[in-house]
Amino acid sequence: MSGMVPNMAIPVHVAPAVFDLDGWAGERLAQVERALDRWVTADVPQGLNHGAPAELVAAMRYAVLDGGKRLRPLLVLAAHEAVCEEDCDTCLSAALRAACAVELIHAYSLVHDDMPCMDNDVLRRGKPTVHVQFGEASALLAGDALQALAFELLTPQDGSVAPTVQANLCGLLARAAGSAGMAGGQAIDLASVGSPLTESQLREMHELKTGALLQASVVMGAYCGAPEPDTLQALQAYGAAIGLAFQVVDDILDVTADSTTLGKTAGKDADNHKPTYVSLMGLQASQAYAQQLLTQARLALDGSGLSQTQTRALRALADMVVNRAH
Amino acid sequence: MSGMVPNMAIPVHVAPAVFDLDGWAGERLAQVERALDRWVTADVPQGLNHGAPAELVAAMRYAVLDGGKRLRPLLVLAAHEAVCEEDCDTCLSAALRAACAVELIHAYSLVHDDMPCMDNDVLRRGKPTVHVQFGEASALLAGDALQALAFELLTPQDGSVAPTVQANLCGLLARAAGSAGMAGGQAIDLASVGSPLTESQLREMHELKTGALLQASVVMGAYCGAPEPDTLQALQAYGAAIGLAFQVVDDILDVTADSTTLGKTAGKDADNHKPTYVSLMGLQASQAYAQQLLTQARLALDGSGLSQTQTRALRALADMVVNRAH
Repeated sequence: MSGMVPNMAIPVHVAPAVFDLDGWAGERLAQVERALDRWVTADVPQGLNHGAPAELVAAMRYAVLDGGKRLRPLLVLAAHEAVCEEDCDTCLSAALRAACAVELIHAYSLVHDDMPCMDNDVLRRGKPTVHVQFGEASALLAGDALQALAFELLTPQDGSVAPTVQANLCGLLARAAGSAGMAGGQAIDLASVGSPLTESQLREMHELKTGALLQASVVMGAYCGAPEPDTLQALQAYGAAIGLAFQVVDDILDVTADSTTLGKTAGKDADNHKPTYVSLMGLQASQAYAQQLLTQARLALDGSGLSQTQTRALRALADMVVNRAH
Repeated sequence: MSGMVPNMAIPVHVAPAVFDLDGWAGERLAQVERALDRWVTADVPQGLNHGAPAELVAAMRYAVLDGGKRLRPLLVLAAHEAVCEEDCDTCLSAALRAACAVELIHAYSLVHDDMPCMDNDVLRRGKPTVHVQFGEASALLAGDALQALAFELLTPQDGSVAPTVQANLCGLLARAAGSAGMAGGQAIDLASVGSPLTESQLREMHELKTGALLQASVVMGAYCGAPEPDTLQALQAYGAAIGLAFQVVDDILDVTADSTTLGKTAGKDADNHKPTYVSLMGLQASQAYAQQLLTQARLALDGSGLSQTQTRALRALADMVVNRAH
């Protein structure tokens, strides 16, 4: 008998339980999806958007629901869980609102970015883009309304989020979305098509375009709790590293993955003569750079004053950002 | 001698000093212009927009500076002065930020509204529209960044505005700008071109499109002080009446004024077969309706618990809205 199943009888070294990111993320994504479904609707009397025209809300829902990796909401919730010592309902309510608010900003930016006067893209998350489905004017207005809705989400009037937290979250989100954040990065991106950028200019562009909102997601999540200054600084550094890594990997995937895997048109950057990390550094150096940024993100967490357990979701998300296939 | 200058010797009845709206507004507009000039720039180190690309900020400044009636900022400041008992620097700082924030939202809505996929207008405030001057993509991004900047203005990190006031102002502005406010009204407007609307549908459209932000201007100004509930309700009613009156008069001017006086293309609504109060009610009935709304606005102020002196700027602004020539 023992010869037949030798391993069962011999004690083996048991590795520490590996954090189950899929399980963790699955639960939180379900929460986020339910919240977005409830908050981006005109069907709830006295609710958000109540009194809004049905066609506009339909375009907003189309832009937001059933799609995307939801990386930003997951970062908000992971940072909140890292900082918040207790399972406090008030903090969680704020964090869920913050998670949805950053996703609304991200979704609106994609709607506007896909429009004919910008990237003129027809495919997004495997579906026709909003302007293809609803027309350009509706896409423009749906994007505008989604941005406003993000700030509405952060300012509930039911006492569920402390005014100081509301004010902090609105300020962080506004700065990350605006001219010195996401919108500014898109403007640089637009101006850079066909023109040579240095690596530092490319990094600056991405720090604004993608990095600002990813970093804000981490910081907003932390602000839903009561972070120590050192912890906040470490989380900002973590956010900066993965914000940049996200874009480097995006550029890598644009040349290594196909459209079906990506859910959007692959190879588009090269076709548009857009500067990318790959076009600037080459594929191999870009891959090495992404790994280096992952190390930076981990080191930031090591110095955050938070435990391995507290930061496990943030660590796993950093891995996912760098090692994802789409 | 006395026969030569008789009036000097005879005492005459002196009428109560008439409120000098032009003088009052002139001072406040100068403040608003200076504030917008300072806040919509990338030139101030550590300031708003610092690090933003120059071209984007140029488009934002073009959209906002040197133009417009600035009705919304004046409403904010008039409501603030009506409510705030003392000449308190903190309140005034909040009110000036709120005044500029509503103007940024208004300015962004015009930029997007003028774009080819919406009204396709080439003239605004007597100048080429933003997309004509800077291109469509820049106009889109400048509008997006102006909306974010509005919320950034409302959330200063220097302690000059109390967190509760910041949260209130952000919430009011977000609701007024979003799907159940301005953006929603624009969506209804868009869908209504060439289709017959009833008077109540037309009113609903305008309540969202123009009314929500005008009303929010009044309420935000009041919230910078500490309004009594009854006063707040009265100011909301005042805001609703002049919000509607503003649009009725706009429709009247579209058929009675010329493009030079308006600073934009006159007769455009009729050309586009857009439903207007004039097309629905006729010119004379529209003019009577505007006067009726002015009376409603005055009655609301009479019942506000505020004195004639406290509400003099709000009264004069209501007169101006209804009796303006452009």
